[in-house]
Amino acid sequence: MNYFSSDFKLGILGGGQLGKMLLFDTRKFDIQTYVLDPSNEAPSRMACNQFFQGDLMDFDTVYNFGKKVDVLTFEIELVNLEALEKLENEGLKVYPSPKTLRKIQNKGVQKDFYAANNIPTAPFERFENLDNLKSKINDLKLPFVWKCTEFGYDGNGVKIIREITDLDSLPNVECIAEEMIPFKNELAVIVCQNPSGEIKTYPVVEMEFHPEANQVEYVICPARIDEKVAEKARAIALNVSQNFNHVGLLAVEMFQTQNDEVIVNEVAPRPHNSGHYSIEASYTSQFENHLRAILDLPLGNTDSKVAGIMVNLVGEEGFSGNVVYENIEKILGWNGVTPHIYGKKETRPFRKMGHVTIVNSDIKEARKIAEDVKNTIRVISK
Amino acid sequence: MNYFSSDFKLGILGGGQLGKMLLFDTRKFDIQTYVLDPSNEAPSRMACNQFFQGDLMDFDTVYNFGKKVDVLTFEIELVNLEALEKLENEGLKVYPSPKTLRKIQNKGVQKDFYAANNIPTAPFERFENLDNLKSKINDLKLPFVWKCTEFGYDGNGVKIIREITDLDSLPNVECIAEEMIPFKNELAVIVCQNPSGEIKTYPVVEMEFHPEANQVEYVICPARIDEKVAEKARAIALNVSQNFNHVGLLAVEMFQTQNDEVIVNEVAPRPHNSGHYSIEASYTSQFENHLRAILDLPLGNTDSKVAGIMVNLVGEEGFSGNVVYENIEKILGWNGVTPHIYGKKETRPFRKMGHVTIVNSDIKEARKIAEDVKNTIRVISK
Repeated sequence: MNYFSSDFKLGILGGGQLGKMLLFDTRKFDIQTYVLDPSNEAPSRMACNQFFQGDLMDFDTVYNFGKKVDVLTFEIELVNLEALEKLENEGLKVYPSPKTLRKIQNKGVQKDFYAANNIPTAPFERFENLDNLKSKINDLKLPFVWKCTEFGYDGNGVKIIREITDLDSLPNVECIAEEMIPFKNELAVIVCQNPSGEIKTYPVVEMEFHPEANQVEYVICPARIDEKVAEKARAIALNVSQNFNHVGLLAVEMFQTQNDEVIVNEVAPRPHNSGHYSIEASYTSQFENHLRAILDLPLGNTDSKVAGIMVNLVGEEGFSGNVVYENIEKILGWNGVTPHIYGKKETRPFRKMGHVTIVNSDIKEARKIAEDVKNTIRVISK
Repeated sequence: MNYFSSDFKLGILGGGQLGKMLLFDTRKFDIQTYVLDPSNEAPSRMACNQFFQGDLMDFDTVYNFGKKVDVLTFEIELVNLEALEKLENEGLKVYPSPKTLRKIQNKGVQKDFYAANNIPTAPFERFENLDNLKSKINDLKLPFVWKCTEFGYDGNGVKIIREITDLDSLPNVECIAEEMIPFKNELAVIVCQNPSGEIKTYPVVEMEFHPEANQVEYVICPARIDEKVAEKARAIALNVSQNFNHVGLLAVEMFQTQNDEVIVNEVAPRPHNSGHYSIEASYTSQFENHLRAILDLPLGNTDSKVAGIMVNLVGEEGFSGNVVYENIEKILGWNGVTPHIYGKKETRPFRKMGHVTIVNSDIKEARKIAEDVKNTIRVISK
């Protein structure tokens, strides 16, 4: 197959920042792209060859879009799965496969998959709905973690239940109750696999949390953990991707427990926030490797050139409207600092507006600069 | 001034591969761009906010385009200078300044500028036209280098005159005769300067020539030369940029003579082929730094993370038509190899179609892989 400067067309479902960053690499390789997104102001609208506005959850919209392209991928999991399955059955290359997506979209199914494949994960129980869970509350040990099985993202749909009354405000939807396992570190490993079976893992990254706010502040690569724990995490991530027969990127989020066990929390079958550092720090960025993987090209080197730390830029509380990045000029003057602005005109509290990568040959120096960045730049409105 | 996700508009004259690579960074910073190019199939057509088709040498076209934007830059020197001057006089920020471009566009004027500012360069004489040169041929020592003063590029418009009959095929245009100075190495340094006066140089790169064909095969960073020569080259390049009161990138091409003097050959006031390695190898690529400079933002770190070598991809002789990059899948499997395909549908003999960067912590290893790349990939037509 000839992809470069040819008539070959790659379709991307979703036109957010992940798609936008993937488009850098399709442009670098001069690969034609079609993008489908519900918003006419999607960050990916520019830099794709053709943009289509439409509902990603609508069967006909997704199916008809898929018919226009030669390979189909997605940058968001919330897409019409039945349309993907029909397209795959009709012979279209859909990567990652809807078979995998079906195992991931529902967290209950995802957890069952780990259990069936001996992949370490926190013990859990599935419930059809909240009423169902409540009726069996006496069998559950407090505290536990409630998770709705579908449509949750970025911490939405997850709640720690310390007392029975904590259940009061929750929606009556399908859910799981997961044993709460105290952990030392939240880790992630991005795995990359192509249809020919070539498979590589990126180094382990570490999410550093704000000491009080319980919010991820920094994604740090490489994780500042024991080499043995890192090896274990990479081996588990590799195993998960292989068990899924996955094609493309798989971001595997894990916990390092108090006694240095590593357990899988959840996965995302696409480029991931925890891999953004790779644009500046890695020999091959996660986006380029996703593209290589779904086109069955050889995978690029996943090693790092230098240490990388990523700081998310989210809209500050109390500000809505046309965005201003206060002090961005200031942080641009610091060593190894690169902002990525996603291209959303309007900020809202906690909206993901961009990220900043800090690279340095010395990870301690990078961490210091990252803290300065975090404390200096503000995403507000004018 | 607020550039990011705002109504600010950057205009770019020229929509070739240099503009295309610059657009990656305008997208990363979410800066609006307008592009003007004569070809409707220009590589920059995609990824800019608005594309205008028009003649870059036409006064009205360039002037009217300039009136639409807040800052104007160019990725090619062959633009209507009078229009730029009028726009600058009317208060538009035009970077690099047309004042500098006027000193560079004509090689005779450029050489006079070096002489007037004590910048080392090969001795030369200016002639109004070839007849004029011929009439004074007895004063010139053979061999010498004939250069037409305008509209030459990529070795066009340059000829070594060993015998008087070598002049026969030349056009009767304004020209210079330059003393031929044998050199050990062809070097280049990219300088970056913003309107506030912040100035940085990239490391010295070395052009490695094919032993027989006298054609640049590899651009190597850092140059494998004595540190003292490197320091001299960087100091001279810095001096040239400062003398021009330059804003933006200035690529300074130099020769290292047999006795380790460094003399200036010529300059280009824009991102340059000799800086393409910086996308993968540098903390801040030449394109990002050009953008930072012309927007008067702080400059990024020009140091390298790793060694970088660039191989140009030019159309092979004997092939014209729809391009195919033979064996590109193969080279993608090698360590640290990234192809950049410019997005031109049709190849022609010697047309610049792309480049390949090879990065590695070990420059010798990078050089080996670069040679394999050079000998493996072929730009042909189907």
